Amino acid sequence: MSIKEKVTAQARQAKEASRQLSGMSSAKKDEALNSIARRLENSGDRIMKINKEDMERGREEGLSDALLDRLKLTEERIQKMASGLRDIAGLEDPIGEVTRMWKRPNGLHVGQIRVPLGVIGIIYEARPNVTVDVAGLCLKAGNAVLLRGGSSAFRSNQVLTGIISDVLRETGFPGSTVQLVQTTDRRAVETIFTLNEYLDVLIPRGGPGLIKRVVEESSVPAIQTGVGNCHIFVDSTADRDMALNIVDNAKTDRPAVCNALETLLVHEDIAGDFLPELEKRFSGRVELRGCEKTRNIIPDIYEARESDWEEEYLDYILAIRVVDNIDQALDHIFTYGSMHSEAVVTEDYSKANRFLEEVDAAAVYVNASTRFTDGGEFGLGAETGISTQKLHARGPMGLKELTTTKYIIRGKGQVR
Amino acid sequence: MSIKEKVTAQARQAKEASRQLSGMSSAKKDEALNSIARRLENSGDRIMKINKEDMERGREEGLSDALLDRLKLTEERIQKMASGLRDIAGLEDPIGEVTRMWKRPNGLHVGQIRVPLGVIGIIYEARPNVTVDVAGLCLKAGNAVLLRGGSSAFRSNQVLTGIISDVLRETGFPGSTVQLVQTTDRRAVETIFTLNEYLDVLIPRGGPGLIKRVVEESSVPAIQTGVGNCHIFVDSTADRDMALNIVDNAKTDRPAVCNALETLLVHEDIAGDFLPELEKRFSGRVELRGCEKTRNIIPDIYEARESDWEEEYLDYILAIRVVDNIDQALDHIFTYGSMHSEAVVTEDYSKANRFLEEVDAAAVYVNASTRFTDGGEFGLGAETGISTQKLHARGPMGLKELTTTKYIIRGKGQVR
Repeated sequence: MSIKEKVTAQARQAKEASRQLSGMSSAKKDEALNSIARRLENSGDRIMKINKEDMERGREEGLSDALLDRLKLTEERIQKMASGLRDIAGLEDPIGEVTRMWKRPNGLHVGQIRVPLGVIGIIYEARPNVTVDVAGLCLKAGNAVLLRGGSSAFRSNQVLTGIISDVLRETGFPGSTVQLVQTTDRRAVETIFTLNEYLDVLIPRGGPGLIKRVVEESSVPAIQTGVGNCHIFVDSTADRDMALNIVDNAKTDRPAVCNALETLLVHEDIAGDFLPELEKRFSGRVELRGCEKTRNIIPDIYEARESDWEEEYLDYILAIRVVDNIDQALDHIFTYGSMHSEAVVTEDYSKANRFLEEVDAAAVYVNASTRFTDGGEFGLGAETGISTQKLHARGPMGLKELTTTKYIIRGKGQVR
Repeated sequence: MSIKEKVTAQARQAKEASRQLSGMSSAKKDEALNSIARRLENSGDRIMKINKEDMERGREEGLSDALLDRLKLTEERIQKMASGLRDIAGLEDPIGEVTRMWKRPNGLHVGQIRVPLGVIGIIYEARPNVTVDVAGLCLKAGNAVLLRGGSSAFRSNQVLTGIISDVLRETGFPGSTVQLVQTTDRRAVETIFTLNEYLDVLIPRGGPGLIKRVVEESSVPAIQTGVGNCHIFVDSTADRDMALNIVDNAKTDRPAVCNALETLLVHEDIAGDFLPELEKRFSGRVELRGCEKTRNIIPDIYEARESDWEEEYLDYILAIRVVDNIDQALDHIFTYGSMHSEAVVTEDYSKANRFLEEVDAAAVYVNASTRFTDGGEFGLGAETGISTQKLHARGPMGLKELTTTKYIIRGKGQVR
């Protein structure tokens, strides 16, 4: 079989599995999730042994220390995957919810009911814990899943999906509920892009390059995730200590994630006081790049160019622009924002309101760090990524975002 | 300017307009809708004069009578467009609804609020009334819209969008809220497919060829609409008169629309009685194509081939298959259905339940005609098409389906 045929066959099996899955009870699904958790914990030695092979190969191929660290599975990380699955088992099952139901004048009962999406394709990069997380979420929402992991984690992903499939079969689920694409050949991805007949959605989890490629090339509907060119606007009325805390946290808590701050906008009335304090607060931990007005206040920093407004640094770098007023801040965000997370720090009621209403982003904040854009922090449970598009899902995607609805109509012979 | 530059410039203006639109009050939007309705009624002569030019050119180009009829605008049809707009004005505005809001343990208030999608692209075919319908729906939901109509209706669409834009400007809306792509050049469509920066969604309304092309070629997220290979399963326990009425209605009320019946599945225990009655009922109005078992019962019909199970006839043709049991009916629908509308006629409670649960389609019926899959019939008001995909919208798309949500988070200095 060619690679195309192999991947297509897996997707077809996934679709067959999804038929059975849609009728599985919550109790059965939770039982399977808990059993997988237990089995993972009991298979630690085996998992780590195979993970070491991935690590060794990665080292030979010159993977960076950061990537090697993401790849590594330890006792603690396996434990964390298992407890993640138990958390998912504890979440409310979204399937079967009647979102609304009404009776028409002709007596038809029309109801909208929540059902699984069907088959979800996930294309992701290094971290093998994603394999277990998304498999668990997809399973809980009644979906089959076709996983295409990064080639550096191939063996680790194989052993993890192998364990998951074993337990699923033992607990009465179709074996092809959770499948890993069984090749690291890049042509497998091109095939996945064309599998409209079998896949209901494709979710890329990884860097901007991967996401762009999926959006442009896939004819399977995709959900765009993760690119975050996030801003904080420090208004003239901001509480300065609060603003310092929020900016510091949003930039430095975890600079490599999508909800980290990238460009700071500061009202000119407060900039003269605020920027020197901020520079002091960062005390060299963050490289600052400023507009002309910024550099008039704190001169010893780099010059910000047009490209700085557009860039998602994902690093200890911060672009700074002094703005005349909230309108200019809103214009800047409209022009350069990636519709992920945007925040204002202000004590002015009307400006807070305007910011909340006028900024078009997945998450809009007043007086809080952009770092909260996260399924766990929102209280949605685990997430399968943060959607930065507007269709179907926006912001952190929890279980509900892995479902769709259908209309069910009960009649007694009505015709039109 | 090249065609690409022109279309891109229109999309950019639409995005600018959408910024203003998202803050427009319901009262302003309804006022505009009612004013457009009035202006259309008062501009009947002008509209019909220009529509005649389209008609004449269509005749010269050899358009079929059916297409010419779809193109034609009469006093009555203009009146219908106007009253459609008034109906939309009367619908509840979906924008601003807080779909849920909760407080996190750290004191953050997290709310999810309904907002416009932004800019909607619509690619459609002959009927100029679509121009007014979708413009009205997009406006009510706070969206800007870029319309690409069929070339045969180009002048009619120009005059209609011209009137709409005039009224919008007069009532304080951006002039580029509703725009028609100002060229019939086919390259405009290719450009639209790439405008991810400005368009939030693309909705094709037309034949399967158009829809397939949009799904395969557009990198702007698209909503797949309208292809309906619909089935009715007449179970052994069906009330025979009810089944006859429903099958007749679903097939012959309007065979050219997507919710019309295409393949009839009949339980073998009832087929011997039911099929002759059905043949009698149709009395030659419908061409029947049957499987072997069907032709053993009613021999004077065509033979159904594999391709008949796959085809959406949109005509007075019906494929018929006799099935052993409900499992075979469900398998047939799983294999050949387009997930649009599927119905069972049965008096058996458990079979009705199984059908509702196991059939994966936008609308699943017990004892009613598939013809009810329609925004108006469901009571959703006007619709912008019937989604047969699972992401974002499924089934008839009303106003709510033209919106998205965003999270708004109110804090008092929280950091992570």
